[in-house]
Amino acid sequence: MKHTAPPRRRKLNAWGFEGVSFSPPRPLRSWLEERIGPPEPRSAVDPRSLRLPAPARLPDLPVPTSDDPADRLLHARGRGFSDLVRLRTGTLPALPDAVVRPEDATDVQEVLRICSRAGVRVIPWGGGTSVTGGVNTLPSAAPTVVLDLERLSGLVAVDARSGHARVRAGTLGPALEAALAPHRLTLGHFPQSWELSTLGGWVATRSSGQESLGFGRIEDLVAGLELVAPAGRLSLPALPASAAGPDLRQLALGSEGRFGVITEATVRVSPRPARRAVEAFLLPQWEDGVEAVREMVLAGLPLHMLRLSDPTETEVGLATGTGGHAWSPLARGWLRLRGAGPGSCLLLCGAAGTPREIRWTLGETRRLLKRYRAVSLGEGPGRRWLLDRFRHPYLRDGLFDLGWATDTLETAASWSALPGLYRAVRLVLASTLPNEEVAVLCHVSHAYRDGASLYFTFFFRDAEDPEEMIALWAALKRAATSVLPAAAGTLSHHHGIGSWHAPWYAREAGTDGVRLLAAAARELDPQGILNPHVLFDPVDRLEV
Amino acid sequence: MKHTAPPRRRKLNAWGFEGVSFSPPRPLRSWLEERIGPPEPRSAVDPRSLRLPAPARLPDLPVPTSDDPADRLLHARGRGFSDLVRLRTGTLPALPDAVVRPEDATDVQEVLRICSRAGVRVIPWGGGTSVTGGVNTLPSAAPTVVLDLERLSGLVAVDARSGHARVRAGTLGPALEAALAPHRLTLGHFPQSWELSTLGGWVATRSSGQESLGFGRIEDLVAGLELVAPAGRLSLPALPASAAGPDLRQLALGSEGRFGVITEATVRVSPRPARRAVEAFLLPQWEDGVEAVREMVLAGLPLHMLRLSDPTETEVGLATGTGGHAWSPLARGWLRLRGAGPGSCLLLCGAAGTPREIRWTLGETRRLLKRYRAVSLGEGPGRRWLLDRFRHPYLRDGLFDLGWATDTLETAASWSALPGLYRAVRLVLASTLPNEEVAVLCHVSHAYRDGASLYFTFFFRDAEDPEEMIALWAALKRAATSVLPAAAGTLSHHHGIGSWHAPWYAREAGTDGVRLLAAAARELDPQGILNPHVLFDPVDRLEV
Ligand SMILES: Cc1cc2nc3c(=O)[nH]c(=O)nc-3n(C[C@H](O)[C@H](O)[C@H](O)COP(=O)(O)OP(=O)(O)OC[C@H]3O[C@@H](n4cnc5c(N)ncnc54)[C@H](O)[C@@H]3O)c2cc1C
Ligand SMILES: Cc1cc2nc3c(=O)[nH]c(=O)nc-3n(C[C@H](O)[C@H](O)[C@H](O)COP(=O)(O)OP(=O)(O)OC[C@H]3O[C@@H](n4cnc5c(N)ncnc54)[C@H](O)[C@@H]3O)c2cc1C
Repeated sequence: MKHTAPPRRRKLNAWGFEGVSFSPPRPLRSWLEERIGPPEPRSAVDPRSLRLPAPARLPDLPVPTSDDPADRLLHARGRGFSDLVRLRTGTLPALPDAVVRPEDATDVQEVLRICSRAGVRVIPWGGGTSVTGGVNTLPSAAPTVVLDLERLSGLVAVDARSGHARVRAGTLGPALEAALAPHRLTLGHFPQSWELSTLGGWVATRSSGQESLGFGRIEDLVAGLELVAPAGRLSLPALPASAAGPDLRQLALGSEGRFGVITEATVRVSPRPARRAVEAFLLPQWEDGVEAVREMVLAGLPLHMLRLSDPTETEVGLATGTGGHAWSPLARGWLRLRGAGPGSCLLLCGAAGTPREIRWTLGETRRLLKRYRAVSLGEGPGRRWLLDRFRHPYLRDGLFDLGWATDTLETAASWSALPGLYRAVRLVLASTLPNEEVAVLCHVSHAYRDGASLYFTFFFRDAEDPEEMIALWAALKRAATSVLPAAAGTLSHHHGIGSWHAPWYAREAGTDGVRLLAAAARELDPQGILNPHVLFDPVDRLEV
Repeated sequence: MKHTAPPRRRKLNAWGFEGVSFSPPRPLRSWLEERIGPPEPRSAVDPRSLRLPAPARLPDLPVPTSDDPADRLLHARGRGFSDLVRLRTGTLPALPDAVVRPEDATDVQEVLRICSRAGVRVIPWGGGTSVTGGVNTLPSAAPTVVLDLERLSGLVAVDARSGHARVRAGTLGPALEAALAPHRLTLGHFPQSWELSTLGGWVATRSSGQESLGFGRIEDLVAGLELVAPAGRLSLPALPASAAGPDLRQLALGSEGRFGVITEATVRVSPRPARRAVEAFLLPQWEDGVEAVREMVLAGLPLHMLRLSDPTETEVGLATGTGGHAWSPLARGWLRLRGAGPGSCLLLCGAAGTPREIRWTLGETRRLLKRYRAVSLGEGPGRRWLLDRFRHPYLRDGLFDLGWATDTLETAASWSALPGLYRAVRLVLASTLPNEEVAVLCHVSHAYRDGASLYFTFFFRDAEDPEEMIALWAALKRAATSVLPAAAGTLSHHHGIGSWHAPWYAREAGTDGVRLLAAAARELDPQGILNPHVLFDPVDRLEV
């Protein structure tokens, strides 16, 4: 018998768990004030005080179904920008009529069959951490239920010899790692949303974890999977490799609930590393830093993580201590002497394994970085980063309280296209709002032999009126997203398409590509009840 | 200006180029005679003496179109077992009405549009090396043209910084490597059919090269691609990674001509290694050998190739010298003293890079293999193997001439499933023919962290009557293929589904999976003119 801690309660209108928060450190506030101007504090509406529309009548469903107000609120939206604004301000355009919690694949099949017959929309829900409008209930004539997979969770079986673990889709990150720990195994998939997101959600969005360099992206980690749809199911065996036709796993990966509900996956697991260490460096210049990252990947250094901040992000990080501790003027002077002046870039290099392996890997890293005139800052900043890595997202809500708006945007491109993409996105973010300053930080956090991701964080002053605030954000988002395909960047390196990127989806997949996927989806879901706004629906819903 | 050698002529009814052959060495003949009995020599019909049916009338096509008899013969079949039997015995059930040679994607589009309107079947043809009935013209009321991509070939552009090369689909292996050589780059994709197969064919069949351990499978090497279909086209940008929906590249990979014609791909290229070396070892037992291969992959040794022969293949290899040189009784005695008796397995370990890198890799390999009581045979057998690796396929025709039939069959499974799969396939191959002995060899030649491939070669005495000979082969093929899904093996690790595995395809992809792919194919090819017998057509055509 195992004693488990009571499940932590999620905040109704902000990121994360009740009782956890992260208020913006003073230097960050000063920096923002200087860059974009003084804010006005905003308080959030108490979600429990909201009067919710009565739920629609639903057909009888053979699984636990809840129309509890908190449940409906908690499952109304993901955790993207406009989601938080609408939740904080009580301006939700619609709510699900119920939350349904199946326990196994048969339950899922039954729910889908009944809803398909009755014309009820179904939104598959893992952890609800989507930042692309991927799980949002939107106004519609048809009733909407959210299919929360939390009861469909847990480790089913481990095949240690093959390094395979069969895991139910609703399993959250920490539960998955806890179940693998006694086998001394790890999946090694740590998105920043890890504490609140699920295996099924990762698969459905082609997620990427912070240690993707060491363990791979989720599509590298899935060997087989099960998917249940209103008009069929896929049961794809776990195989190391196959030439038996097109890879249907890769159609489920990224399907965002449109093709069916992923009920379980067999994932590739690895021996659990004994230890992790992250060494920080300062590199004199962004371009050099990018080149160093490229060279490290090509050299095949067995690093697990690489994260290179641009000069602005480095400046903010060093000033505020989010990248380590705040740097005293003395330390800054010393760094300047060693060549790390303004324009320097912070590079975190993470290794995992035995102490000996880590020493070797970081030793080789140091040797390679010498040629780039890198200055080591030791393991302090990285230790801080490891401690805080799942706490950072709470900062956004702290900033909202103060009156600052912030969001992120991410993409990836080949090494050749990266510099142009970096410039284009920064330029468009900084120049789109006529009357507001926008501050932009950027880092590379996932690197490949042929290219890397870019992850932008931007800040602007919020507006009093939520619609105006969302309009400002939507303007930035539209402008930046439009730039991506033109600058050879993907619409998303790891957040997915959801409903917010859907208007641009054909720019990347092609109109015929979208048609092809839509035809495949129709085959499994002829009534189109599954998550109908994501991927193929080209309507701009940024402001809904 | 470059002087190029005149193109080598292909044999009309056998593998490979005119002027090259490989007759079975005497020890192999003795071994076969002992194992499966004495053969009766068979001679092949001269293909030029065959009277071909008149070609059907075709609509005017705006590209070079040939109905030359040799061209039609050369494009009637791939290079699988029954293909060679039918070509050798002049028993082809049908011939293409013409061979069409487009020069660019616009040509392809035009041909497809016209053929779609006129109800003419189109078989995309790369090198025609399919061993799964993937390019065969079969009897039908509709005319059939073969779309040979040989003119759509060559390197379009190199992006050395990103390690990307844009290559036209019809480019043959040697031409591709020759074009990359001045850039000091390599694709590193070397299927045994490399000299006669094309990039487009590799993509369409999810091919795997002999150095897949070092460079990856073709699906790892494709960053972007272009596909032209009767009712649409896909233009998928070259990206290092993306979460923008399902991966359409992975739908084209393995599409075997059913979704459209791949006209070009952007592939991931690597620095060309300075040198290659292959060290051979003998391991006392098959099970240990498999375990050693698994451990080498998990240890991440930077090997480029691993190939482990089972005891029977090792015996044949050592006796006949195909795995190196024939072993004198003296050498055998010495090996036996060191623990390598009957039951030993030959393991080839290939490394590539600078001499220093190779020394290091093979050193680590030796150290790891010590624990498995491996005996090194030095680099002799590997050197022989490297020299002969593209010559081995000619042996099959030499055996045919003598009256011996041989074919191969390949699969892959997780490490846990591998031993059972190995036993099941060997058992069924050895026991299916009531009146004939079947000799079976096997090796592992592609290994992954979670499993490996198995490649079986089997021999039996042929029959005088070609239909009987094909019936014997089809019986073996049916029996063995039926075993694969049940024993958790994939229907193909690298040869694809073609028309021959199609009856079993739903056993792996599921009936709904097949339906889904068929719906997608219909979207791009509503008249179903493209290669209509592969993948989704469940009719058993092994004997056609
Ligand atoms: C603060 C924060 C940090 C983040 N950091 C990262 C990061 O580092 N890397 C990263 O990749 N992402 C990140 N994300 C985005 C998000 O966490 C990922 O997209 C994650 O994969 C979503 O998982 P989920 O279980 O929460 O899915 P949900 O948000 O519940 O759903 C996402 C989509 O998948 C569908 N879906 C969910 N489960 C299933 C299922 N079982 N079957 C079919 N469809 C399903 C939904 O319908 C929806 O379309 C972050 C998000 C936040 C808010
Ligand atoms: C002796 C021998 C050894 C072999 N060794 C290997 C090996 O080591 N590894 C391996 O993977 N395979 C091997 N094969 C199988 C075969 O060579 C591969 O399947 C190869 O990828 C086929 O390439 P191709 O250009 O000859 O294609 P083809 O045989 O011409 O066509 C194969 C399939 O792809 C389709 N196709 C071809 N080109 C295109 C295109 N441009 N667009 C759309 N569809 C297209 C065809 O319609 C057909 O369905 C071997 C075959 C032989 C005969």
